[in-house]
Amino acid sequence: MLKNGNITGFRRNLKLNDVGNQMYQLISELYPICRSITGNGFRESLKVIKKSIPLEIHEVPSGTQVFDWTVPKEWNIKDAYIKNLKGEKIVDFQESNLHVVSYSVQIRKKISLAALKEHLFTIPDYPDWIPYRTSYYKENWGFCLSHNQFLQMQDEEYEVCIDSSLEDGHLTYGEYYLGGESSDEILISCHACHPSLCNDNLSGISLATLLAKYLSQLSLRYSYRFIYIPGTIGSIAWLALNEHQVGRIKHGLVLTCVGDPGKSTYKKSRRGDAEVDKAAIHVLKHSAQDHEIIDFFPYGYDERQYCSPGFNLAVGCLMRSQHGQFPEYHTSADNLDLVQPPYLGDSFSKCLSILHVLENNKIYLNQNPKCETQLGKRGLYKAIGGQKDSGLNQMAILWVMNLSDGSHTLLDIAQRSGMAFDVIKNAADALLEADLLRCC
Amino acid sequence: MLKNGNITGFRRNLKLNDVGNQMYQLISELYPICRSITGNGFRESLKVIKKSIPLEIHEVPSGTQVFDWTVPKEWNIKDAYIKNLKGEKIVDFQESNLHVVSYSVQIRKKISLAALKEHLFTIPDYPDWIPYRTSYYKENWGFCLSHNQFLQMQDEEYEVCIDSSLEDGHLTYGEYYLGGESSDEILISCHACHPSLCNDNLSGISLATLLAKYLSQLSLRYSYRFIYIPGTIGSIAWLALNEHQVGRIKHGLVLTCVGDPGKSTYKKSRRGDAEVDKAAIHVLKHSAQDHEIIDFFPYGYDERQYCSPGFNLAVGCLMRSQHGQFPEYHTSADNLDLVQPPYLGDSFSKCLSILHVLENNKIYLNQNPKCETQLGKRGLYKAIGGQKDSGLNQMAILWVMNLSDGSHTLLDIAQRSGMAFDVIKNAADALLEADLLRCC
Amino acid sequence: MLKNGNITGFRRNLKLNDVGNQMYQLISELYPICRSITGNGFRESLKVIKKSIPLEIHEVPSGTQVFDWTVPKEWNIKDAYIKNLKGEKIVDFQESNLHVVSYSVQIRKKISLAALKEHLFTIPDYPDWIPYRTSYYKENWGFCLSHNQFLQMQDEEYEVCIDSSLEDGHLTYGEYYLGGESSDEILISCHACHPSLCNDNLSGISLATLLAKYLSQLSLRYSYRFIYIPGTIGSIAWLALNEHQVGRIKHGLVLTCVGDPGKSTYKKSRRGDAEVDKAAIHVLKHSAQDHEIIDFFPYGYDERQYCSPGFNLAVGCLMRSQHGQFPEYHTSADNLDLVQPPYLGDSFSKCLSILHVLENNKIYLNQNPKCETQLGKRGLYKAIGGQKDSGLNQMAILWVMNLSDGSHTLLDIAQRSGMAFDVIKNAADALLEADLLRCC
Repeated sequence: MLKNGNITGFRRNLKLNDVGNQMYQLISELYPICRSITGNGFRESLKVIKKSIPLEIHEVPSGTQVFDWTVPKEWNIKDAYIKNLKGEKIVDFQESNLHVVSYSVQIRKKISLAALKEHLFTIPDYPDWIPYRTSYYKENWGFCLSHNQFLQMQDEEYEVCIDSSLEDGHLTYGEYYLGGESSDEILISCHACHPSLCNDNLSGISLATLLAKYLSQLSLRYSYRFIYIPGTIGSIAWLALNEHQVGRIKHGLVLTCVGDPGKSTYKKSRRGDAEVDKAAIHVLKHSAQDHEIIDFFPYGYDERQYCSPGFNLAVGCLMRSQHGQFPEYHTSADNLDLVQPPYLGDSFSKCLSILHVLENNKIYLNQNPKCETQLGKRGLYKAIGGQKDSGLNQMAILWVMNLSDGSHTLLDIAQRSGMAFDVIKNAADALLEADLLRCC
Repeated sequence: MLKNGNITGFRRNLKLNDVGNQMYQLISELYPICRSITGNGFRESLKVIKKSIPLEIHEVPSGTQVFDWTVPKEWNIKDAYIKNLKGEKIVDFQESNLHVVSYSVQIRKKISLAALKEHLFTIPDYPDWIPYRTSYYKENWGFCLSHNQFLQMQDEEYEVCIDSSLEDGHLTYGEYYLGGESSDEILISCHACHPSLCNDNLSGISLATLLAKYLSQLSLRYSYRFIYIPGTIGSIAWLALNEHQVGRIKHGLVLTCVGDPGKSTYKKSRRGDAEVDKAAIHVLKHSAQDHEIIDFFPYGYDERQYCSPGFNLAVGCLMRSQHGQFPEYHTSADNLDLVQPPYLGDSFSKCLSILHVLENNKIYLNQNPKCETQLGKRGLYKAIGGQKDSGLNQMAILWVMNLSDGSHTLLDIAQRSGMAFDVIKNAADALLEADLLRCC
Repeated sequence: MLKNGNITGFRRNLKLNDVGNQMYQLISELYPICRSITGNGFRESLKVIKKSIPLEIHEVPSGTQVFDWTVPKEWNIKDAYIKNLKGEKIVDFQESNLHVVSYSVQIRKKISLAALKEHLFTIPDYPDWIPYRTSYYKENWGFCLSHNQFLQMQDEEYEVCIDSSLEDGHLTYGEYYLGGESSDEILISCHACHPSLCNDNLSGISLATLLAKYLSQLSLRYSYRFIYIPGTIGSIAWLALNEHQVGRIKHGLVLTCVGDPGKSTYKKSRRGDAEVDKAAIHVLKHSAQDHEIIDFFPYGYDERQYCSPGFNLAVGCLMRSQHGQFPEYHTSADNLDLVQPPYLGDSFSKCLSILHVLENNKIYLNQNPKCETQLGKRGLYKAIGGQKDSGLNQMAILWVMNLSDGSHTLLDIAQRSGMAFDVIKNAADALLEADLLRCC
């Protein structure tokens, strides 16, 4: 493919509405699929993504040892229901794949309400919502249903059926590598193991996919690696299988929960002051929107693995509402109403801005470090001195010249001057053009 | 003696009421004795303490050069009074040993009120209280009395008598060494040179003594050295005589003013960020009580000597109301009413908690540093994922695993996670038990 | 000249009223002269200064290359006016030298109001004030006038005359070197290129000159270099010509805008934590007056050149109202009413205090670092202990002894103790006197 431009130009011409709508479109297509940490639902989802980007599909056999963990058996499901005495399906997997506890083993039997109750999960506080439950590492079965459904169940015998299989197979993940000028990599990671949940799962997938699609058309400084993995076991498996090349990852972002109306949140890497942390904080601070910066803590999403002490990668997490902090979290209310194109587009824009900073965050050398350069004779200074208004860009030019001493990146200059990265970058571009700066 | 447990277990079963009462009991027994920086009152006090712990008594001869100072002559006193013309003792040492300026030389003579006034000390602002005064390094004599007593004195001739001696003798101090696993020491220092003053003197003595008594029954990581010294000249003498082994002192606390109703105060060591400073600050911050942390300054108690630049030991000072900051300070109102068992017990508890942190503040190594350990298969994680409530201990477990990289102590982990040291320690204990951590 | 004392004694006996009046007197004498970055006005100004101090005058030929800049042609002016049809001079250089744009080329012609307007500058917001404008690096001509004058101009033909010359000549600057004990230098720099502007220009000149005059009578630790230069091109030329000896400059101050009623302002050097920064901040904080400390930014006065990355000198800027931040800035209202002797004297005092700190900011070594020194036997401690009031000086003595470990300057001690430098210095002097400190 002909590379037609860089991230700066792309960003300038970006139509956020269009991107937000494309993200929402992809989410809508993926929504009905019943994903889990293994199985055909995961594969089917990767196939949908592959329509946008040339994803490589990897299959890791069940039983593979990955650090302290073992790749589990593969789980697949065809159908599931609870029938009452009249033969009516009062809970039906075909209506919502959340109705079955993920990794439920096969079952078909008659059972009293009392015995069945131990396998039923509801949310009394939100009686219309179906909870999302899993039992990956302990063989079990169960149904999730709304509390109102549950309250209508009579004290009678029920027929329960879960037509699932749990057998040796594979853990599947998708990977897309996009080569750049340098072999240093930026890792973009999203989990794709949740069934019909939009914000927690599909929003991150859609952001990663649209990013990958558009970045693939650009000339890039860094190489990018996008991975679509089941949460926890997926990132552990990926790290175990790719341990030899993890050193190339210079920056990384876990993307999740980026489509809801909540304010943007950045959770720092374990290092706390990595370049990606500074870039993300800068972008959110200059977004003129309410936002939140939170310190790393060893819970949440796959940053837990990337930031484990044996790796300690510079990987942060970009979200809107946080893991477990919004009521719709892990319920059927995390649906196509919760995520909306404007929020998705805004998250795309912020993520792109973070990457824009990383792509352009270079160190330059002032070619005339002793005293100021005479900017006037190069058309970079006002001809008539003594006037009161000195434009913003002129200050940026002075800042870039003053701090381009080999020890300040453009982001450092932006931070010290209090100016936006873009304003500093524009100044640096003008100075490079005039041969007053040299790349370090 | 059979060592029956460690500090953690002792702390768990501690009955603070009992300890507070024992401390108050000891204070009551020591209260009537007329102590000074040398002399038999000091010796008698050590004898009382020796009933609780096997104190070694040291005698340093008068005239011994200790750094820039010289051990003074020994002072002893039998009696002292002021008689009026009628022969009535209007000021009587037998009623309060504060009535005589400490180190007053022998005197017996008739004297006019005018001449006597130059040797009388009162506190006009607190007319019922007797002040406490000393004249260690300049030979002099004087009486302290309540301002009301003073106002009743007629303009007549008085007979003054101070039956004291100031002769070559010794400076006495007590020391108790308690060996632990390591020869690294924790120094506990208290001054014992004030006569009938409870908070400023006896409370610190009682805290040190009860601590020593109980710690002696436990298996300890550190060795402990308890010293009972006269203020200033005592710590100077001790440091001069023990200079060769001062390097073993890794942490230390000066204990004083720990029995009054004021809030707990910790004065940092000169280093400011020593481990004992962090431990004390952590304990006070997690005490759920009002407290105060103050920076080191070169005034106060014996921390002045331990923190002189030539030693710069990691010694802080634990108090309630501060040196010179409560009205009863250095007056007869610093008596058995000012200190109370509940405050004494609370100070004991905080001091013990600080030692508990120091005893247990180790660095551990996560044995599976690459990605998270699978806690579930070891019974350390909930079997069913996806639930909202993740218990506090589980977060502690994750924090300990994430930060046990060889560069974080448990206290560092507590600080970074915002959790209490005990919660972090419990998590570490569980992980050690499961062989997931190794001691560094 | 016989050196009769040091800066401490001079400062103690200083009569600020007298100094303020002398500064105002010098400003008044310099005010009428038409200065620019080159030319006879600049030379005439240096001659006036030379009456106070033995200034060396340097002449740098036009065309000399100084780093990225070229010394411009020399500009001189005899007269200038705008005449109306009646032959009345409606704008007259003889009334105010601000009426002509500095560096205006020679012109004499008839011109319509419409054409003339492109060469006229006013300040509509302050209709009575004449603006100050320059066109150093682009050949042009123009007049500045009050907006009210401008509004009265009829739509008629005018005669404009600027009798100026712009020819090869010299850039002139003045320099005064005052040798001290050490060859390490303190640089005092002020710009002297503005015509009749008092605060922005003459106040800095007067402060530098009076400082130089008085310091020349004292025994000094540092050598001092006072330079009177045209702004920007002057400091660039000076740095280019003196590059080999710039390493001697240990501290420096740019002095400007020090005569108006605004609060004192210190702009930090690019380093931000240089000794001169700490000294200036300390002096302003302990001045008991409102003040402002601002971070370095690459705009303002000649600190821009001293703090360019190739030099990065420890040069800050002392002002009252800041560059461009007061309405009178670069207008005819920056006149003999705006600056007043009390503000000038106060700025002198603060500048002197900063130099006082630098002159005396030494590191001492406690000669008895182990435990406290017995101050009592040396008359440095109260004889009777136990009293509540411990004077300020006694705490200063304890602080100096405690921190004089070879790694704290007196200013460090002042900062950590929260006490004023003078109080700390007095304590150190007493301790030096008693042989308890030694110079490091």
